[in-house]
Amino acid sequence: MERLLIIYKKGRNDAAVLAQELVAWLNAKGYAAKARENLSDTKTLTPPPPLPMDADAVVVLGGDGTLLSVARQVADRDIPIVGVNLGGLGFLTEISREHCFQDLDRVLSGAYDIEERMRLRVALERQGREVFVQTVLNDAVINKGALARIVDLDTHIDGRYLTHYRADGLIVATPTGSTAYNLSAGGPIVYPTAQAVILTPICPFALSNRPIILPASSRIQVQLDDKAQDVTLTCDGQVGQRLAPNDTIAVVMSPHSLKLIKPASTDYFDILRTKLKWGQT
Amino acid sequence: MERLLIIYKKGRNDAAVLAQELVAWLNAKGYAAKARENLSDTKTLTPPPPLPMDADAVVVLGGDGTLLSVARQVADRDIPIVGVNLGGLGFLTEISREHCFQDLDRVLSGAYDIEERMRLRVALERQGREVFVQTVLNDAVINKGALARIVDLDTHIDGRYLTHYRADGLIVATPTGSTAYNLSAGGPIVYPTAQAVILTPICPFALSNRPIILPASSRIQVQLDDKAQDVTLTCDGQVGQRLAPNDTIAVVMSPHSLKLIKPASTDYFDILRTKLKWGQT
Amino acid sequence: MERLLIIYKKGRNDAAVLAQELVAWLNAKGYAAKARENLSDTKTLTPPPPLPMDADAVVVLGGDGTLLSVARQVADRDIPIVGVNLGGLGFLTEISREHCFQDLDRVLSGAYDIEERMRLRVALERQGREVFVQTVLNDAVINKGALARIVDLDTHIDGRYLTHYRADGLIVATPTGSTAYNLSAGGPIVYPTAQAVILTPICPFALSNRPIILPASSRIQVQLDDKAQDVTLTCDGQVGQRLAPNDTIAVVMSPHSLKLIKPASTDYFDILRTKLKWGQT
Amino acid sequence: MERLLIIYKKGRNDAAVLAQELVAWLNAKGYAAKARENLSDTKTLTPPPPLPMDADAVVVLGGDGTLLSVARQVADRDIPIVGVNLGGLGFLTEISREHCFQDLDRVLSGAYDIEERMRLRVALERQGREVFVQTVLNDAVINKGALARIVDLDTHIDGRYLTHYRADGLIVATPTGSTAYNLSAGGPIVYPTAQAVILTPICPFALSNRPIILPASSRIQVQLDDKAQDVTLTCDGQVGQRLAPNDTIAVVMSPHSLKLIKPASTDYFDILRTKLKWGQT
Repeated sequence: MERLLIIYKKGRNDAAVLAQELVAWLNAKGYAAKARENLSDTKTLTPPPPLPMDADAVVVLGGDGTLLSVARQVADRDIPIVGVNLGGLGFLTEISREHCFQDLDRVLSGAYDIEERMRLRVALERQGREVFVQTVLNDAVINKGALARIVDLDTHIDGRYLTHYRADGLIVATPTGSTAYNLSAGGPIVYPTAQAVILTPICPFALSNRPIILPASSRIQVQLDDKAQDVTLTCDGQVGQRLAPNDTIAVVMSPHSLKLIKPASTDYFDILRTKLKWGQT
Repeated sequence: MERLLIIYKKGRNDAAVLAQELVAWLNAKGYAAKARENLSDTKTLTPPPPLPMDADAVVVLGGDGTLLSVARQVADRDIPIVGVNLGGLGFLTEISREHCFQDLDRVLSGAYDIEERMRLRVALERQGREVFVQTVLNDAVINKGALARIVDLDTHIDGRYLTHYRADGLIVATPTGSTAYNLSAGGPIVYPTAQAVILTPICPFALSNRPIILPASSRIQVQLDDKAQDVTLTCDGQVGQRLAPNDTIAVVMSPHSLKLIKPASTDYFDILRTKLKWGQT
Repeated sequence: MERLLIIYKKGRNDAAVLAQELVAWLNAKGYAAKARENLSDTKTLTPPPPLPMDADAVVVLGGDGTLLSVARQVADRDIPIVGVNLGGLGFLTEISREHCFQDLDRVLSGAYDIEERMRLRVALERQGREVFVQTVLNDAVINKGALARIVDLDTHIDGRYLTHYRADGLIVATPTGSTAYNLSAGGPIVYPTAQAVILTPICPFALSNRPIILPASSRIQVQLDDKAQDVTLTCDGQVGQRLAPNDTIAVVMSPHSLKLIKPASTDYFDILRTKLKWGQT
Repeated sequence: MERLLIIYKKGRNDAAVLAQELVAWLNAKGYAAKARENLSDTKTLTPPPPLPMDADAVVVLGGDGTLLSVARQVADRDIPIVGVNLGGLGFLTEISREHCFQDLDRVLSGAYDIEERMRLRVALERQGREVFVQTVLNDAVINKGALARIVDLDTHIDGRYLTHYRADGLIVATPTGSTAYNLSAGGPIVYPTAQAVILTPICPFALSNRPIILPASSRIQVQLDDKAQDVTLTCDGQVGQRLAPNDTIAVVMSPHSLKLIKPASTDYFDILRTKLKWGQT
């Protein structure tokens, strides 16, 4: 690691200040470091701008949301990311603000693991053409607007009919995304390095529905019916796209996993118990 | 019962035809019967028009949705309703099309029970004023739009703090409404004549959430926070209202229950098993 | 209240000591107080001994388990109970050890409410005869042994067929019992003064199962099939009875509610959030 | 495949008759076939007898239960199994009785896939020694007796602390076992060829519990506390072992997967929808 890019959360002054401190600190140590605000405008229908970068690693200052956004900008490049959380404990941003310099020092000295997190390539197909493609670290969510009628979704796996979902929507999640929206919708926790894809319906009409875990290699196709109205595809909860009747969402494992730099001290189960209060009495 | 009003599902020709047949049949029997299309435009932000009626009973031709709509139009008048379903089995419209004349004959001869179904008075309070009021038979649902951030709802019962929901939304349901949206969101089935109100969060963030059943007499207040955006109140899934930051939804049992005419032959548990496939293996 | 009976948890020395302190304190104030160890041997197949008492109120020193046991001993007498918890916060024993004298002083001065908690009369019918009867405050649980095959239970409500449960067992709970075993099995929370009975299957075979809430007046009959082996009926988790093939468990609301003395300071929702971490993030 | 062993369900006369027909049919075709009753006495505390066999493939006549039993007898030998179900549709016994000869003919001609199903090696460790070992295809279940108190289980994954379960028990399941007891306890469906282990608590005390899916390579240790009483370990629901205080159950992926012969016609999703009524409305 010679060239480091620091991307900090949009509109957060303390993040900008810390970013400048880190640049000075890294440059003094002989690294080529520069800092940039995260430009991605989440919660709009616009996909994030491509990240014009020339770096060996990215340091993200913000929360899990900022890291998710940067991960999509990194896209198919093999640049590892490390996250420093500026607020509470994060699943992805595991370095705390107070141990920031100390933990980065350790990372720069080589004391870290690289965790490969599988991602999903999500494509919106309309009339036989791909009109929108995203690589997500957490999930692709198809859901209806507040006043829209229930959604009818025909689902095929590797070309075989799976089921017909009547629901408010459907979540296709990675193991990393299992602790995000999937959990709120009743889905299971999946260890982040497991190779699997989770399908969890949102408020399904059928009493007999239950989440299903598929092999990571599965080719998932979800098709809207011809009456679909006010239905949206949301990627990582940040990038949205209006859907049209008969649209198909095709999801496969991305060939480009995310390389997450893990300082030696972090423990996933500890985050589960602390952040989610999982299993606590 | 002397004067009968027949209200049939909007835009359904077979319903209009059946309505005319029923009018002729009833008039021939000496009843004063007339028929009208259901004018309520569901799935809009407009509440239904008041029902200008002068009848001893209403016969609804349609599905549960049409009956829900007519129930809101009946509002606080003590006019009993009987439903004839034109499609599949209904929870509220228990007379099937094929037994329609025969079952109505029995009803007219007095062979029926009246089931009192509790309803909820739902009021939207903005800056200290009630700006929107509905009487619902099923539920009041507060939920966010597809792209909106999670909703923060402070909830009080009889003036006491209950909890703070972080969720996609919240359902306040009657026992009658327990088999509607409440069931999709993971809530329990509540026998329709029980005296209770159900609070079920929609995709709650906290793992430890669980539906809660309150006494029918409870005064429920749900308050949005000052950052709420793209949040909607929906009554019986049919009448919607955009909410603003700091809005409060106040829900109490309506003093006006719905009088549902029950032909002797129907059985709630049978509908549960047949329509919802509840407990079936 | 003139005559007070103090019953303290079996085998707990600190409880015995506190009981003697309370007797002395009460006698000094002019009340006729006496103390007794709780004799009920829970977790056996033996029902509790009848409580030979001559008191205007009972003070229970222990946890919710001790109060449940004493409540069954009070049976059909109208003697109110107040609970002092010696360990953590309890749903039933709401006075804490540290505020014990102060809170009892308030109660003796009349500053309390009486909360009527509905109970269930649970009868085991074998070959047409009632062979075992208990009045429970929490629940009656039918469940199989660790190595036994799945249980088949035919259930009728007021003589009407409800469903056939294939499961590890079935919980019939009061609102008070909703926060006990019912919650572990996935059932909803029911406010303790609501009038309702909850049926929650334990690990049901059918995906489409879901708890059902019935009116308090329901007459519930659960019948084992002719192959049932190693199945037990447990009352309030404390008194058990081996079941035989074709046994029927008949449950109705007891005419004798429990009178629970509520010091002014306690709040049910607060206990839900604190003790169960309900809805906490 | 030259030598075929047919094992038929214990105590089923029609199975014995079909087995003899198959032996005659196979011998006439030039195969070396013999038939044997399944000797394993399930639902006892006795592990199955080792299978003294000298065969290239095993044909099981019975249900999924018989196949599970035979799979444990095959143990670490690489002999593929094919199942013929004599009753309803099975997840493991996919050939129906009526297509039995026709489907086996196809299999013998080579028209089949081999599906590798991961298994778990389950070891009971007492005072530092392995006292009981089984290789399971479905699950290892730790659960309490009907009258026993809640179980306290400390769980570690790869030596790291996971959580402390307070529950009726804990299920450690393979993907194949996900549609067995795991599903009744609220766990997710996992596609049978996925590489994963599922941990699902049975009736957990904590509201915040949720199943967790771990990588297949995980080393799982579950330890009872020093007060555990009336707790049992059950393997595939068929072989049980009483547990003692402080016992540890150690579970790892078995190096010996089960080779399941799949006739070309079967489809897992179809079985899910038909047998479990998964997602059906």
